[in-house]
Amino acid sequence: MVQATTLPRNEAGIKAAIDVLKQRLGEQLQTGQAIREQHGHTTTWIANQAPDAVVFPTSTEEVAEIVKVCADYGVPVIPFGTGTSLEGHVNAPAGGICVDMMRMDKILTVHAEDLDVVVQPGVTREQLNTYLRDQGLFFPIDPGANASLGGMAATRASGTNAVRYGTMKDNVLALEAVMADGGVIRTAQRAKKSSAGYDMTRLLVGSEGTLGLITELTLRLQGIPEAIRSARCAFRSVDDACRAVMMTIQYGIQVARIEMLDTLSVQAANAYSSLSLPEMPLLLLEFHGSEAGVVEQADTFAQIAEDFGGFDIAATSTAEERNALWQARHDMYWACLQLRTDAKGISTDVCVPISRLAECVSSARAKAEDMGLLAPMVGHVGDGNFHALLLIDMESVDEREKADIYMAWLNELAIEMDGTCTGEHGIGQGKRPYLKRELGETTRYMAAIKAALDPENIMNPGKILEM
Amino acid sequence: MVQATTLPRNEAGIKAAIDVLKQRLGEQLQTGQAIREQHGHTTTWIANQAPDAVVFPTSTEEVAEIVKVCADYGVPVIPFGTGTSLEGHVNAPAGGICVDMMRMDKILTVHAEDLDVVVQPGVTREQLNTYLRDQGLFFPIDPGANASLGGMAATRASGTNAVRYGTMKDNVLALEAVMADGGVIRTAQRAKKSSAGYDMTRLLVGSEGTLGLITELTLRLQGIPEAIRSARCAFRSVDDACRAVMMTIQYGIQVARIEMLDTLSVQAANAYSSLSLPEMPLLLLEFHGSEAGVVEQADTFAQIAEDFGGFDIAATSTAEERNALWQARHDMYWACLQLRTDAKGISTDVCVPISRLAECVSSARAKAEDMGLLAPMVGHVGDGNFHALLLIDMESVDEREKADIYMAWLNELAIEMDGTCTGEHGIGQGKRPYLKRELGETTRYMAAIKAALDPENIMNPGKILEM
Repeated sequence: MVQATTLPRNEAGIKAAIDVLKQRLGEQLQTGQAIREQHGHTTTWIANQAPDAVVFPTSTEEVAEIVKVCADYGVPVIPFGTGTSLEGHVNAPAGGICVDMMRMDKILTVHAEDLDVVVQPGVTREQLNTYLRDQGLFFPIDPGANASLGGMAATRASGTNAVRYGTMKDNVLALEAVMADGGVIRTAQRAKKSSAGYDMTRLLVGSEGTLGLITELTLRLQGIPEAIRSARCAFRSVDDACRAVMMTIQYGIQVARIEMLDTLSVQAANAYSSLSLPEMPLLLLEFHGSEAGVVEQADTFAQIAEDFGGFDIAATSTAEERNALWQARHDMYWACLQLRTDAKGISTDVCVPISRLAECVSSARAKAEDMGLLAPMVGHVGDGNFHALLLIDMESVDEREKADIYMAWLNELAIEMDGTCTGEHGIGQGKRPYLKRELGETTRYMAAIKAALDPENIMNPGKILEM
Repeated sequence: MVQATTLPRNEAGIKAAIDVLKQRLGEQLQTGQAIREQHGHTTTWIANQAPDAVVFPTSTEEVAEIVKVCADYGVPVIPFGTGTSLEGHVNAPAGGICVDMMRMDKILTVHAEDLDVVVQPGVTREQLNTYLRDQGLFFPIDPGANASLGGMAATRASGTNAVRYGTMKDNVLALEAVMADGGVIRTAQRAKKSSAGYDMTRLLVGSEGTLGLITELTLRLQGIPEAIRSARCAFRSVDDACRAVMMTIQYGIQVARIEMLDTLSVQAANAYSSLSLPEMPLLLLEFHGSEAGVVEQADTFAQIAEDFGGFDIAATSTAEERNALWQARHDMYWACLQLRTDAKGISTDVCVPISRLAECVSSARAKAEDMGLLAPMVGHVGDGNFHALLLIDMESVDEREKADIYMAWLNELAIEMDGTCTGEHGIGQGKRPYLKRELGETTRYMAAIKAALDPENIMNPGKILEM
């Protein structure tokens, strides 16, 4: 594990805040080592930095009370959902109180006519979609993990459906949040659009708990499409696959998903999911629309794919076939880990303008091979976003260093291509240097906003900004 | 005209800043009365508050220099595009320097493969779309006026196409802006999505020049659809029309436009544009897609409309018919003014959850009639957004008071319905009290952000926030 920076601890304040909160919240506050370490744990390559206590609030009022106590004593507050973030987002580099939101798990109101829903932050996306299914509605954002919706908003999550439905920034209508001084705000009303003042919704979405704690979300919903059709297509090179993607998007086909697996990933999927996909770069697609519409979309895609040498084009229309395909996609992380069973996986992501995607993926592949790194790559390629999963023996200093060098190189490459060091994983602790590299002076104004809204730097300190 | 609040003037600073800027920029700075008054003028009901000078920069460097001089002397800076805003956005309540961005009118780079374009802020939407047409691309946001893209971003503009393509918040990929200290930032790279830090793009979009001056925009583009089809349909009541809209959206028909004209508006359109539309509430629609797709959409809509008593359903597929229909829609402002030739039009807008739209429009209609106000209404009803155009004799104190009372009542009604006091016109000077009413405590945190980024309050003071 890579050691994260530690920050100065306010020992007296932490002790006092825990005493006060224990008195008020009783068993809702826990300080056992296992529970603390579990709340520093994420699917991350950065060493665990456990908080000093974990609280389990059940209401906005309790969250506000917790934050007020922490503000009084100058103690860090770290929000926690399902712990599936990837860049050390929930570590406690200065100690402090972790606020586990998972007991705030109520779906409050479905407004079916308005296509929106009001939920507490601990509701997970699968929980929400199971609940909505009978009403013919769904929430489209799917980052892979069954993450909490509060966490997904806080990290501006996206995933496979973003190419059609956007990211969390596009699907949150309004938030309720507790700010650093304990004040409770509602960022917007339920109208579908508004030009009323600064966009506080979008400021909180992606702020990773550093500006406020999300205590309620109003989310946009979609009607479950009349028809869904999936397709897959193999290509002789990543370059051909990427060019087919670019043309598909330019052509205006509203693909709901367009995912790329590189050869290594396809090999992993075949082995893990007992499939027999051609071991070449592969696109997996999904189309949403009317019965006639999805057939038309799939046919148009097939013509485009053939122009770029696509072969083994197969459409699926039954739910079973489709589910098998997407299950294999969702299992990629576990499948890839099987490529090297003594290794851990470090998942990193970048996002570039789609015109640079082929070059970026090809360079990333070549560089990994040059450095002797095993790194299957999969991507939400319709957005120019892809992941490399570095399979690393974490006991080997040499391999860990190589991984560091590789990730730094990849981030630089994406930034040079007018892309971003993170399309969807967020900054957390791990990508802070690259944020500065990517946006330069802009981070100074971000820091001014942070200082204005959280002058004591108690809200998830040590994340996003190097302060 | 309604008098706007004036703010204290820094006479010595203003004089000194003008002297310095005159020396550096020569004829690019103007102080003639006519030009100053023109730059306080907008399509507004609020009295003109002219700036003390108008400068015409031609580059980001010049804008930065102007802002630095104004910062040195504590002088207000007011950005100006086409002057088509509606709530006193470009007034100068404390005097100061108006920065007219219209000489920064270059389309810098079209990235056709990435479906984006980089433009200067003085490019207008029609200029951009004319330029793009040959490449099969278009920029969808259409607020009616041929506004500048910088102004559209600054006011979070939307309009008829927003139901499908979103508002400016969804279509700006990145901004370059000059901040209050003269620093130049770039808010994001060109990647289609990013989770890298606070969303400075969305913070500047809709900030109405109070946080920074937009000097360059990277905008998302769309491919011109293979087929476009328009339709119109009359209804016996606003209620029926609104319920048909709600069902159309719920059904997942991706209408590109769905506009409602109330009976009074249809009468105005018939008279002004020599049409013979049935003088009943009317929906105008546009569908974008493949040849088969638009026919399917139009047919599905027709079935829904019939369920709600829609009649005189007519589809148009030729460009001529379509253009005549939308020209009439775009001419509504002028057509409605003809309903009462001695009057001025005060255009106000609200936006509510679509389930409340029928009730909101019907109440707004009844209230106008009760108060003896002539107020045709048109709406971007797919978003729950509509406008009332109050036809008022501005010389009559009584009528002006009535208009004030009506607008206050309408804003309150929208807010009570979980809607917003402005769907697309913005806050400016006119809607500041309602912003506070709508978002309460949240405005305190907006003020903290404003104070952090513009501590001397030189950036378009007296707008959005009451400070």
